Amino acid sequence: MILDAPMRIAIAQINTILGDFSFNRKKIVDYCHQAKKQNCDLVVFPELSLMGYLPMDLLERGSVVEAQLKEFAQLQKELPSGLNILLGLITPCKAKKGKPFYNSAALVCKGKKPRFFHKELLPTYDVFDEARHLEKGNCKKNFFTFRGKRILVTICEDIWGWELPDHPSNYLSNPLLGLKGEKVDLILNMSASPFTKRKRRDRHFVTQKTALLFKAPLIYTNLVGAQDEIIFDGASFAIDKKGQLLTQSPGFTEDLNIIDFFSTTKNDKPKPKATLKSSATETLKDALVIGLRDYVLKTGFQKVHLGLSGGIDSAVVACLAVEALGPQNIVGFTLPGPFNDPLSLELAEQLASNLKIQCLNAPIGPSYELAIDELKKAMGDFSFGIVNENLQARLRGLYLMAYSNKENSLLLSTGNKSEYATGYSTLYGDMCGGLAPIGDLTKSEVYTLAEFYNRKVELIPKTIITRPPSAELRPNQKDQDSLPPYHELDASVVRLIEQKRRAKTETDRWLLEKIYRSEFKRWQAPPILKVSQHAFGRGRRFPLAHKAKT
Amino acid sequence: MILDAPMRIAIAQINTILGDFSFNRKKIVDYCHQAKKQNCDLVVFPELSLMGYLPMDLLERGSVVEAQLKEFAQLQKELPSGLNILLGLITPCKAKKGKPFYNSAALVCKGKKPRFFHKELLPTYDVFDEARHLEKGNCKKNFFTFRGKRILVTICEDIWGWELPDHPSNYLSNPLLGLKGEKVDLILNMSASPFTKRKRRDRHFVTQKTALLFKAPLIYTNLVGAQDEIIFDGASFAIDKKGQLLTQSPGFTEDLNIIDFFSTTKNDKPKPKATLKSSATETLKDALVIGLRDYVLKTGFQKVHLGLSGGIDSAVVACLAVEALGPQNIVGFTLPGPFNDPLSLELAEQLASNLKIQCLNAPIGPSYELAIDELKKAMGDFSFGIVNENLQARLRGLYLMAYSNKENSLLLSTGNKSEYATGYSTLYGDMCGGLAPIGDLTKSEVYTLAEFYNRKVELIPKTIITRPPSAELRPNQKDQDSLPPYHELDASVVRLIEQKRRAKTETDRWLLEKIYRSEFKRWQAPPILKVSQHAFGRGRRFPLAHKAKT
Repeated sequence: MILDAPMRIAIAQINTILGDFSFNRKKIVDYCHQAKKQNCDLVVFPELSLMGYLPMDLLERGSVVEAQLKEFAQLQKELPSGLNILLGLITPCKAKKGKPFYNSAALVCKGKKPRFFHKELLPTYDVFDEARHLEKGNCKKNFFTFRGKRILVTICEDIWGWELPDHPSNYLSNPLLGLKGEKVDLILNMSASPFTKRKRRDRHFVTQKTALLFKAPLIYTNLVGAQDEIIFDGASFAIDKKGQLLTQSPGFTEDLNIIDFFSTTKNDKPKPKATLKSSATETLKDALVIGLRDYVLKTGFQKVHLGLSGGIDSAVVACLAVEALGPQNIVGFTLPGPFNDPLSLELAEQLASNLKIQCLNAPIGPSYELAIDELKKAMGDFSFGIVNENLQARLRGLYLMAYSNKENSLLLSTGNKSEYATGYSTLYGDMCGGLAPIGDLTKSEVYTLAEFYNRKVELIPKTIITRPPSAELRPNQKDQDSLPPYHELDASVVRLIEQKRRAKTETDRWLLEKIYRSEFKRWQAPPILKVSQHAFGRGRRFPLAHKAKT
Repeated sequence: MILDAPMRIAIAQINTILGDFSFNRKKIVDYCHQAKKQNCDLVVFPELSLMGYLPMDLLERGSVVEAQLKEFAQLQKELPSGLNILLGLITPCKAKKGKPFYNSAALVCKGKKPRFFHKELLPTYDVFDEARHLEKGNCKKNFFTFRGKRILVTICEDIWGWELPDHPSNYLSNPLLGLKGEKVDLILNMSASPFTKRKRRDRHFVTQKTALLFKAPLIYTNLVGAQDEIIFDGASFAIDKKGQLLTQSPGFTEDLNIIDFFSTTKNDKPKPKATLKSSATETLKDALVIGLRDYVLKTGFQKVHLGLSGGIDSAVVACLAVEALGPQNIVGFTLPGPFNDPLSLELAEQLASNLKIQCLNAPIGPSYELAIDELKKAMGDFSFGIVNENLQARLRGLYLMAYSNKENSLLLSTGNKSEYATGYSTLYGDMCGGLAPIGDLTKSEVYTLAEFYNRKVELIPKTIITRPPSAELRPNQKDQDSLPPYHELDASVVRLIEQKRRAKTETDRWLLEKIYRSEFKRWQAPPILKVSQHAFGRGRRFPLAHKAKT
């Protein structure tokens, strides 16, 4: 047995495509060859790196898992010799009873029989449904010895059994505590950990707790990229046995980060490689950009379009889209209606010009006038009100979807979380779209992002930021006629939705009633890029028909 | 101790309202007084009878559970003296760690301290997410002794640990087997068991297995009514220790069914009370009717409307709506467009007349012509195609939603499962609506239901049933131009979606590709009344951005 032999480990932070097993295999093999060239002994990939994450009900199709296992067999043949790799995949349970699969890590080395380790803590909160198709593994079995060192393999949630205030992970017992006293030289964690604004802090908390428990260093390999509503920020790292950072991989991009462990000389001590951006706003922006880009590209689109209202929401979405896909792939639509301030059109066109995107103009006035006449003929007279307002929003949706059909372009929805929470949005109107990039941002955060985009030049015309927000669906309408001041509203949104607190203030109670009353709209909302602790979308499942009031 | 004393038990099959704790309390108290009048010793209510089922993420609001517990305290004061009742509610876990709540049964008797029993098997498949907010109980603790008899309390899934072929319940171990050898005189099961076409068969299988295991009779109390997409059919029953039916409660209606146990005389042996309908089609129809009615009423609507195309889907939805809410609460809309056969309008009007519902006419032609012109001005010329087709469907949606806004009427969506599976439907067009009553029925089942409605008189004009189905969005269009014959398609829908089988036939493979490509539409679909083993809707969670092919 070789004791204290140095060990060179590569942290392979890759962007996988769910269900594209041959793509994922090739990427894994490619990273392995790169690691081999740099004399690595072991490469660690993220959770479910071969399957892609999160598979959700794809796992109800046995044939999908079979296809993945076939690629796993192929992958083993293509690896460089002598290199050990740890990758993530779905494996079948041998028991006839219970859920059919495990969320597994495989330790593979060309010519050797692979060894498997199974995830024990299966999250069942927010966007996670891992108990739907998966059985629990047992952390006690997840050790292997490599070059004389005893290594503990953990898969994502396995290290989240710590008590973490205000975090939805919450387990009766922490499986790591059951391993106390075990000799551990190194802990590997393979993650697919969704980005949220506070997640990096949480990760450092749980990894540090884990390192301290075993008095051993820890490597945290995270997925990068996005899948539907979920963004993975990468930002993998390694810490020493005291929880001090040894190396840091960058955020929001693929990376192979190499680190030496158990070295006998002091010279090759690892050093931090990347520096994470310290601006929370820039990090949030980077998350939304990769989320938007990956959603569009992974669903098979190249182009997107959106309505430009001359307001701040569409301005920020346009900026994100340009950064994600390039101005040549974005089309803006101005859709002036009977109650738009002419300034709105001007500002929208100025924005499009600043962003160098094509801008099309489709006035809804004629269609609106005709539809009102036709409706009155069909269903009797009505005075100006909700019918007229929603009709304008829906005609815009109709025109934007026609462009979608004509050009095979994905429509971006520009709603924000404050609007979605209050139901201040029209179903089948401004809620139309394939993706809501800022649907998890409060209005205040939208303003912050706008200011960020303007930090060097005035990309977003200043007036868009300074004028009072309005839906412009009736004469002289302002958001603040129907809604509390945004700073108050947004604070309530965070308290009630993200922190799941009780309603305490007047605004809280007002908002809670609106939230309950507008649940039916969000049931039919487009996917929303999740950046907060708790977003509207698949991770929040409220009933429609209920009478709860608190 | 009184041995072999007779025991009179009431099976209280009630229709609760989720989150309306005072409504549920009053109903429970009312049923208790009725039972007391009939000299009952014990009343058994369904699972979560005080909370309502299924609460989903309402359980992330601690204040909601608190409000329910307050009503529980109130309820105990209002019970008739001397009567024991078993009701369902959410209770807080005492442990500081883990999920916050249990799904519990409370045994209460006025003036006595209640006893609690907690559900052990928490389903995490299809529509069930019980591991999101709940901790497991322990069946071993769920006994109480009453009048000398040892009674086992089980909550819904607790008796579903048996191996049940082709059913998604699937557990590593059956907690009931851990109770083998225990003395059990009677098993009580409190359920909120969703209706599916095969569910009654499954229930009899698991209850019989359970009765045989303990050689004891079993009372199965089921919820009745509907909640969002889920229909509860009631049809509670009791079986003897051999699994033979002792009494049967009716389906789809509230009921208090009284049965005597442990009687010393042979005369008062219980007899079956209700007969369940033997027609599978009628049962399916009854399920949809209660599902539709409860959705509309429990979301606070009185009226519904729908587009009548002269086709079979809207005809069947209209029949269901009339049965659920009465003709005075239904409005039909004919929305003729440029490519409708004049016969379609005639048939739709005939149907409305047969059903005695109001029929409004809103031709979409003028709006369609204008929108096409405006679109061409805005985005350049295009030849007749998908833009034109979807535009018609979306204009109909626009008009129907305007009526919704004007009259506070809920729009019913008329799509069926075969359409939803193939994506043969227009998002924001015919997919508009607050509820899709036949969204879980294959086209073949829609025909069967139409024939059923016509069994006595020709309610649905015969030509609606016999003419070839068409969306009428282009000249001489027929469904069969784009789709496989419905009998083939429907068989594939059942195989791939409901039975989750592999694609084997040509049609299977064609359909699977369509299913994957149209997932984005279903993400934004209205709630769908679930009647099959696996419906589109909340119980099926497929990713959008993936490349799986099998």
